[in-house]
Amino acid sequence: MTVAGSIFPRVPDLETIREASRRISPHIHRTPVMTCASLDALAGARLFFKCENLQKCGAFKIRGATNAMALLSEEEARRGVVTHSSGNHAAALSLAARGRGAAAWIVMPSNAPSIKKAAVEAYGGRITECEPTLAAREAAAREIIERTGAVMIHPYNDARIIAGQGTAALEFLEQAPDLEFILAPVSGGGLLSGTAIAAKGLRPQVRVIGCEPQNADDAHRSKASGRIEPMEHPDTIADGLRASLCEMTFSVIRERVDQIALVSEEEIVEAMRYVWERMKIVIEPSAAVAAAVAVFRKVDWQGKKVGVILSGGNVDLAKLPFAK
Amino acid sequence: MTVAGSIFPRVPDLETIREASRRISPHIHRTPVMTCASLDALAGARLFFKCENLQKCGAFKIRGATNAMALLSEEEARRGVVTHSSGNHAAALSLAARGRGAAAWIVMPSNAPSIKKAAVEAYGGRITECEPTLAAREAAAREIIERTGAVMIHPYNDARIIAGQGTAALEFLEQAPDLEFILAPVSGGGLLSGTAIAAKGLRPQVRVIGCEPQNADDAHRSKASGRIEPMEHPDTIADGLRASLCEMTFSVIRERVDQIALVSEEEIVEAMRYVWERMKIVIEPSAAVAAAVAVFRKVDWQGKKVGVILSGGNVDLAKLPFAK
Repeated sequence: MTVAGSIFPRVPDLETIREASRRISPHIHRTPVMTCASLDALAGARLFFKCENLQKCGAFKIRGATNAMALLSEEEARRGVVTHSSGNHAAALSLAARGRGAAAWIVMPSNAPSIKKAAVEAYGGRITECEPTLAAREAAAREIIERTGAVMIHPYNDARIIAGQGTAALEFLEQAPDLEFILAPVSGGGLLSGTAIAAKGLRPQVRVIGCEPQNADDAHRSKASGRIEPMEHPDTIADGLRASLCEMTFSVIRERVDQIALVSEEEIVEAMRYVWERMKIVIEPSAAVAAAVAVFRKVDWQGKKVGVILSGGNVDLAKLPFAK
Repeated sequence: MTVAGSIFPRVPDLETIREASRRISPHIHRTPVMTCASLDALAGARLFFKCENLQKCGAFKIRGATNAMALLSEEEARRGVVTHSSGNHAAALSLAARGRGAAAWIVMPSNAPSIKKAAVEAYGGRITECEPTLAAREAAAREIIERTGAVMIHPYNDARIIAGQGTAALEFLEQAPDLEFILAPVSGGGLLSGTAIAAKGLRPQVRVIGCEPQNADDAHRSKASGRIEPMEHPDTIADGLRASLCEMTFSVIRERVDQIALVSEEEIVEAMRYVWERMKIVIEPSAAVAAAVAVFRKVDWQGKKVGVILSGGNVDLAKLPFAK
């Protein structure tokens, strides 16, 4: 199976991300940047929040999915697309495929949040459930490809996706040009690698920080050892951060990300509560991982300007972690 | 006890609201107006949401409180201020008083949400708890005035407060000038009367709709009978909407509000969930009352432009009504 399309074989560069931005901007929201004095006080820094929770589909994933769909040939679009995803990429690809008039087959692990399954269905995606392991996901996707000829759009091991996700940081630095740090959550690494390419390309002195749960710390361990250290059984409330890096994303993260900061499950929930209570916006646990790195001061940035990508806002309101 | 200060004896007019806006704008946020395609589909209209949940203190109440504090004489400010409020006015007055260097005595009913009590304390307000009845609130406030000489800043029976609350609609019509309907929740009527004065003054053809829980329907009954019909035992999740109209607010609402629309408790919770899920913003049940009138189409407005004032976002996250 071909992971990246033939017109997009390599790791993207800044210009590729700029092209992606021009390509997708008519189809996505330019999300606002918010500030909050009480969170600044907690962080000891001036925080700027890029609100991708207010993005279409409720997450940055629509950026990469829209870019990838736009780059398909007519013939590929007729065959339809397939992916495996715990949620936000699945919903985003379903919506982007519908925009192109293409079918979308979505392999989802059985433990994906019901709200994310409902979103896929609402956008017309066709769900196949599988066991929550990478092997089961890949086997189910392969079976669909053999049966339908659909084109694989991997959630992160795909340069079209990485270029699309990088457009969030591109916009962010247009809106807040003098950021000194940029924080993004890391799972498979599509957002973080795209962020690093865009941010370091535009502003080499900016420090790019990946934000990861202690309980799913493969990126942290991989960066320390210099080779991919997959996560076997991630056990974190951050349901969007349970995947592990791939070669393409790790090659970027190894070179251009300054640090991977870790947070505990308690810090994720506490940061999520802070953002909901003080900023009055809904973020999902994966986004709260980056907020937690900020409010629990995991990096030495006293008084500096720190950008935080709030990656998404899709949560099951019937299963919140706040009840005492 | 003097309800409105001597320089502000009458019901405010549009010019008074404009003056209030100039007076308070350096001290408050100009809150954004948001839209949401999926809520439009539910409402059968084009909805515009004025996000006062993103206001300082998390509610529009800082507008009136800031206006009232700014209008105090030096001698009055030295005596300090007193109010009774179930929450948002209490927190807002505490913050506005601190900005003026004045003491704030706050009478709160024993059933006020703990998050609202915590906000008052965080802003330096001095809380006196009382039974959750209007008589008990007023008696406790009187006792404080006798003891301290503090100036009463009533949460709504005060022209300075009404003028301040009216600035939200003034801004709203600058941001979305061609609204055909404006929806605001109604409790004591400060926001709704200020909204009606501003909106009808700027744009006489706009229809102003008060939004009220069925279980606290005093404004609806008062408008029907032509005289104030107080609510004895309001039983609604909308903790900010349990007060009843006063003469000053009713005199405006009787003449300039086109309709009071009612919603059930179930509709309030459902609308709150829609806004959290689709718009990814946190609103409190009182704000959800206006959203519920919109999404459950309580008014005939097919295809029209409908403005909804989302009055606040202060909720206790440990006690949410969404769990199944």
